[in-house]
Amino acid sequence: MSSVAEPQTDTASQTVYFRCVSGCTGKFSIYDVIYTCPTCGSLLEVHHEREPLQKKNAYQWQQLFDSRASVSSWPYGSGVWGMREWVIPSLADENVVSMFEGNTNLFWAERLGKQLGVPDLWIKLCGNSHTGSFKDLGMTVLVSVVKQMMARGSSVKAVACASTGDTSAALSAYAAYAGIPAIIFLPAGKVSTAQLIQPVANGAHVLALDTDFDGCMKIVQEVTKDNSIYLANSMNSLRIEGQKTVGIEIVRQFEWEVPDWIVIPVGNLGNISALHKGFQLMMDLGLINRMPRLVAAQAERANPFYQSYKNGFKDKVSVTASDTLANAIRIGDPISYVKAVKAVEETDGIVEQASENELAAAAAHADLTGMFTCPHTGVALAVLAKLIKRGVIKSSDKTVVISTAHGLKFTDFKVGYHESSLEGVTSEFANPATHLPADASAVKDEIAKRLNL
Amino acid sequence: MSSVAEPQTDTASQTVYFRCVSGCTGKFSIYDVIYTCPTCGSLLEVHHEREPLQKKNAYQWQQLFDSRASVSSWPYGSGVWGMREWVIPSLADENVVSMFEGNTNLFWAERLGKQLGVPDLWIKLCGNSHTGSFKDLGMTVLVSVVKQMMARGSSVKAVACASTGDTSAALSAYAAYAGIPAIIFLPAGKVSTAQLIQPVANGAHVLALDTDFDGCMKIVQEVTKDNSIYLANSMNSLRIEGQKTVGIEIVRQFEWEVPDWIVIPVGNLGNISALHKGFQLMMDLGLINRMPRLVAAQAERANPFYQSYKNGFKDKVSVTASDTLANAIRIGDPISYVKAVKAVEETDGIVEQASENELAAAAAHADLTGMFTCPHTGVALAVLAKLIKRGVIKSSDKTVVISTAHGLKFTDFKVGYHESSLEGVTSEFANPATHLPADASAVKDEIAKRLNL
Repeated sequence: MSSVAEPQTDTASQTVYFRCVSGCTGKFSIYDVIYTCPTCGSLLEVHHEREPLQKKNAYQWQQLFDSRASVSSWPYGSGVWGMREWVIPSLADENVVSMFEGNTNLFWAERLGKQLGVPDLWIKLCGNSHTGSFKDLGMTVLVSVVKQMMARGSSVKAVACASTGDTSAALSAYAAYAGIPAIIFLPAGKVSTAQLIQPVANGAHVLALDTDFDGCMKIVQEVTKDNSIYLANSMNSLRIEGQKTVGIEIVRQFEWEVPDWIVIPVGNLGNISALHKGFQLMMDLGLINRMPRLVAAQAERANPFYQSYKNGFKDKVSVTASDTLANAIRIGDPISYVKAVKAVEETDGIVEQASENELAAAAAHADLTGMFTCPHTGVALAVLAKLIKRGVIKSSDKTVVISTAHGLKFTDFKVGYHESSLEGVTSEFANPATHLPADASAVKDEIAKRLNL
Repeated sequence: MSSVAEPQTDTASQTVYFRCVSGCTGKFSIYDVIYTCPTCGSLLEVHHEREPLQKKNAYQWQQLFDSRASVSSWPYGSGVWGMREWVIPSLADENVVSMFEGNTNLFWAERLGKQLGVPDLWIKLCGNSHTGSFKDLGMTVLVSVVKQMMARGSSVKAVACASTGDTSAALSAYAAYAGIPAIIFLPAGKVSTAQLIQPVANGAHVLALDTDFDGCMKIVQEVTKDNSIYLANSMNSLRIEGQKTVGIEIVRQFEWEVPDWIVIPVGNLGNISALHKGFQLMMDLGLINRMPRLVAAQAERANPFYQSYKNGFKDKVSVTASDTLANAIRIGDPISYVKAVKAVEETDGIVEQASENELAAAAAHADLTGMFTCPHTGVALAVLAKLIKRGVIKSSDKTVVISTAHGLKFTDFKVGYHESSLEGVTSEFANPATHLPADASAVKDEIAKRLNL
């Protein structure tokens, strides 16, 4: 796609730019409508030159970020924009489209950790957010940049994506907040109103096309050729800039101590790339002096990255992904493969997988200790349990699991589990209601039995 | 119910105690199993003697609360426990059962406010929380107190409530986190697994009884007579202590400026009582010098408080509540009536109501500007629109609407609205998906038409 130059209004944008992730030369403005390298077709990444950031020392950055956590002064209460110098420094205040994303609970999983044998276990609950998933972190950045593009005379008139899940929900909400039209493309007849209710409610233009998901992507590319519609799918690297703050935020919440492990469920691989990017930036600026080991957790039924890892990343493996309960990571040909390989290799990382039964059990087990986990978090928790059992993650290790969405987005999964109706899943933790007569002594007996009174 | 004395281990508990809301003499320990005044049967309230709190001046309190917002040091990152001296000062750190509740987004409703003619409009999104509703604020207090009771040898072995909604979800989650058994009573055959999935997933003992809701309450009272099970229903006044922090938090988020209006959806009237209690405490300690005007918003189909207001609060009105989309406030005989009358009278407040059609339209309208509102928030927004239209709330007024739950808990309501299938509701903002052939030029035409390109 062609690159349309936008006016550069400050020096920051000259030190923060798109570049090719595969190393081709060339800098592109982050306000250009460009998604891939014009030379080789690889993904782009936003590069922050280190020199301007080194004008503050590590301690000064830590103090600054600490001081902004949840303050009232716009836009610093946001976990993303509290680090704006590391995200998109050239964005004007009035173009920040923020709904207080980030600063989510780093949940101390005290009971679960003890049960699993890793008492220093923490779950980063990214789903306790405006639209219920970690996608808010990236969309605040993308929609803010688009707002600035539009304010400065860009040809862009709308944002769009082909998605049936969290991405379309987050894009629609942020676009609605900004007053920018959003267009959502999806295959007709395959998605219920319930699955789409967030974009529908947020007033997106929801277009159901007579084709499959790949067919939708083809039409999207065609329709967006003239640069009047900005694409928000995973190939867009602006979202990574917001998502990378989650790792920085975790370390900040630990008072700048680096955990030993971070386990994250992966599909398209943008999230683990982002995590790594945030840690790399902290290393380069001296805020931390070691990397956590990153664990990419895949569903066994959609495991191309696991297969690539098993062959030593010699070749990128693509698969036809099967249906999985973890449907947001049902990806056969992950788009951020190159970045993710780097993330695993440079952190002495691991890729592991979980079966449907394992992910469902891990999610249900965690819920018994006060969480309400989505199936993807179940994948990460199941992988965690495997690595503990294998002795890779040790009892003294400080471990974080990234929970990517709120369980309230997946009530069908939970109802199915507790009604023991999920295919291929043994519901060992099922906890259905008990039916009793309206009789106090019968009720007392039942309670006494259950509580061992 | 009898009062079982707990050991008093610090001076704080002698200045913070239960007392009768109707003015009977007597102080009761907050660690006693007691819910109502033994003399007159009225509700109790937690009273904080002012003198110990006056040892800090207003500015010192403001500085302290500001400095704790979202910090890492346990348990101050919680919006509730960041004000622990004003909540339950005698609670030991190790007994605080917190999941980072509070510090929710005070959403600047810039677009909606302009559309409604009140540009200084803010929505306090209490539903962006662990269990998806404001009930977390109260349950963290109740479950923490129970944990301390149990740690100090109380006869209490479990917590319980009769509820089918947010209360049971919050109680179950906090109990699960603390490792305390929770028992949920509900009428058999009237509640689906989906409605109950949070307590079920969090491992509560869910008992479905062959009776109606009132029948459940009777059995609960019977079963809990021996004080082995602590009741968490609305008659329990500990929850108010957590809920009162929401008003203090709003003022803190406005840098200690008091809004002109706060609109809140009400049923059992605990939440407006709590709001008032927080503001009264700030007034008494000099942090603010005026009260906001509180607006209680009721669903027309469950409007006893509105009827009481209309008769000048001469008599408490009870009604048989009809079915309403705003089912969490479907209450015919509100339990916190006395406290709520005081809240309205002492703040020059108003009670107003909204029809099913009005609440649904108000919710859908707000969603178009980036929110994802529950039907109860719809009630409050509809009442807001009425008061603006009537000239009561003026264009220059700073107005806050309390959003009590996340819309993700009410997807059926939203799907029904956008499928135009809600009884008695005209879906003027319905935004269903548009079906198109997989043809780029047809798609381009549709987009051009919609965006006026």
